[in-house]
Amino acid sequence: MEAVLAKRRRKEPSVDELFKGILKGDRSTLAKGITLVESNLPQHQNKAQELIQKCLPYSGNSLRIGITGSPGAGKSSFIETFGVYLIEEHKKKLAVLAIDPTSQRTKGSILGDKTRMNCLSAKDDAFIRPSPSGSSLGGVAQKTRESILLCEAAGYSTILIETVGVGQSETAVHGMTDFFLLLMLAGAGDELQGIKRGIMEMCDGMAITKCDGQNITKALAARSEYQNALHLFPAAQSGWPPKVIATSSVTKEGLPEVWQMITEFENTVKQNNWFYQNRKEQQKNWMENTIHDSLMFNFYKHPDVQKELPLAEQAVLEGKESPFKAANRLLSYFSR
Amino acid sequence: MEAVLAKRRRKEPSVDELFKGILKGDRSTLAKGITLVESNLPQHQNKAQELIQKCLPYSGNSLRIGITGSPGAGKSSFIETFGVYLIEEHKKKLAVLAIDPTSQRTKGSILGDKTRMNCLSAKDDAFIRPSPSGSSLGGVAQKTRESILLCEAAGYSTILIETVGVGQSETAVHGMTDFFLLLMLAGAGDELQGIKRGIMEMCDGMAITKCDGQNITKALAARSEYQNALHLFPAAQSGWPPKVIATSSVTKEGLPEVWQMITEFENTVKQNNWFYQNRKEQQKNWMENTIHDSLMFNFYKHPDVQKELPLAEQAVLEGKESPFKAANRLLSYFSR
Repeated sequence: MEAVLAKRRRKEPSVDELFKGILKGDRSTLAKGITLVESNLPQHQNKAQELIQKCLPYSGNSLRIGITGSPGAGKSSFIETFGVYLIEEHKKKLAVLAIDPTSQRTKGSILGDKTRMNCLSAKDDAFIRPSPSGSSLGGVAQKTRESILLCEAAGYSTILIETVGVGQSETAVHGMTDFFLLLMLAGAGDELQGIKRGIMEMCDGMAITKCDGQNITKALAARSEYQNALHLFPAAQSGWPPKVIATSSVTKEGLPEVWQMITEFENTVKQNNWFYQNRKEQQKNWMENTIHDSLMFNFYKHPDVQKELPLAEQAVLEGKESPFKAANRLLSYFSR
Repeated sequence: MEAVLAKRRRKEPSVDELFKGILKGDRSTLAKGITLVESNLPQHQNKAQELIQKCLPYSGNSLRIGITGSPGAGKSSFIETFGVYLIEEHKKKLAVLAIDPTSQRTKGSILGDKTRMNCLSAKDDAFIRPSPSGSSLGGVAQKTRESILLCEAAGYSTILIETVGVGQSETAVHGMTDFFLLLMLAGAGDELQGIKRGIMEMCDGMAITKCDGQNITKALAARSEYQNALHLFPAAQSGWPPKVIATSSVTKEGLPEVWQMITEFENTVKQNNWFYQNRKEQQKNWMENTIHDSLMFNFYKHPDVQKELPLAEQAVLEGKESPFKAANRLLSYFSR
């Protein structure tokens, strides 16, 4: 009898069981569903696609918020206090996901250490999921997009997607969210150090963190400096002019203003229809990105390409072969 | 006899004839070589690759300068007066190329109307070539990269590559040049209107144009405003902090300072080795871009994909099919 129970316990849940559990909002089933989506095993991928297809009609009803900032900007503290605030004051069901292109190399992962978010992870209405691992940012991004759909089917109304402001990941997060928030620690002088060029121009809002104690003057100065800098950028397609808010995870300063900003944004872009156009555009881009990533992956994993690529690169770098000729040679191996 | 001459005149020059003419610096042979490179005919493409391969050892010895700015910023006037200045004052051999992603649609082309550059095109040491036409920005960019190599083999020491600051073309130009100059017309208020977001962060230098007559005060104000804004950006990998210079094509104000800036940049990045690393990186990227563009082109021109793509997009936009499932369906047609 015990053996039967153990076997049943180890048995993987069916797509239908997962689907029903997710629709009921069961957190542990949602976690299992996301584990399925994140799996790289071929037999899991078919099941995952079936699950996503089932959840699709129940998805889309959340506000998807991207959050980025360089390491040390205070992302974890902000997400913890802001998340608790949203659950306590606004009765939100909150899911927190992450994309971390560096986790592959460091074997660490943002959000990986949930103990950093003691208060938030203790909440019944919070679901926290660390960054998936994957062979490429494209793969990781696709898994996160699919996880968003499952979280929405499970009834999460607000989804925060965290990333670090290095590499290409913030572009990926920008492409899967409705609102993009940039966290910035007021420092001395070289304010944007460590943040990728271009990232400021993608944001819908900016939060200066650690505006407390001896930091207040510096933070308020940074706030107006960034607000002025943002005015120099061309108007965003959304018709929304980005705002800068000084916040503190210690005093909770600015958290209501950040939420008010996001709500105002949502109203504005739903009224002018940009919200819906952007979502449609993102859907189309997800399809195109999947095609793109798959084509590139298949090319670079081709055995002849893998063997010849280093030689071709060498010949190009030494100026012995033109980049175009080398490319065409590699392409001919692939199409053979 | 006349018929024989006419026939000879119409006969296409051999790769060897083109190569020898280009090495001698013959402008009309260079023009023919670029025409060959730009041709979309398969029999021309093999000849073109042979010519490029021959020129390759003689290429690389120029300074490649990208110039962008929105329509109306005064690019043509700047290039004309700056070009004449470089030839007269610094004895440069100057080639001017262009990438224009809009020429496909408008059937116009930047640099197409050479009469706009009367003085420059009259110079023996200037070679001006309008934007090539092509089916994609990728194709156009590749042709421009190849044309750069031919111009260098022909002894042109300074190459200006012009583009308009819309779409993706400035990223392409940035990826094939050593120095990237952004032209900006001082306007009232919304300074960056019309310039793609992110472009300011790519530039190594900025020239405020039309700093003359009644415009001087406005231009100088814009100069310090942009210089302040650029300080907010993180330090570039090159180690070079971008400068802003007020210029006039009428009074020639600022032209020596622009050239001095570019020379200082060249010295800095050659000393710290970034110049050479960047060139190597670009070579590798050219190969990767060629592979990428070719793979995508072959996918989207596949007859089954062309037939099914609009239906798949429709299903995705209506939420009937997940973007990932639709993508995989299209990919299966392709690999069949």
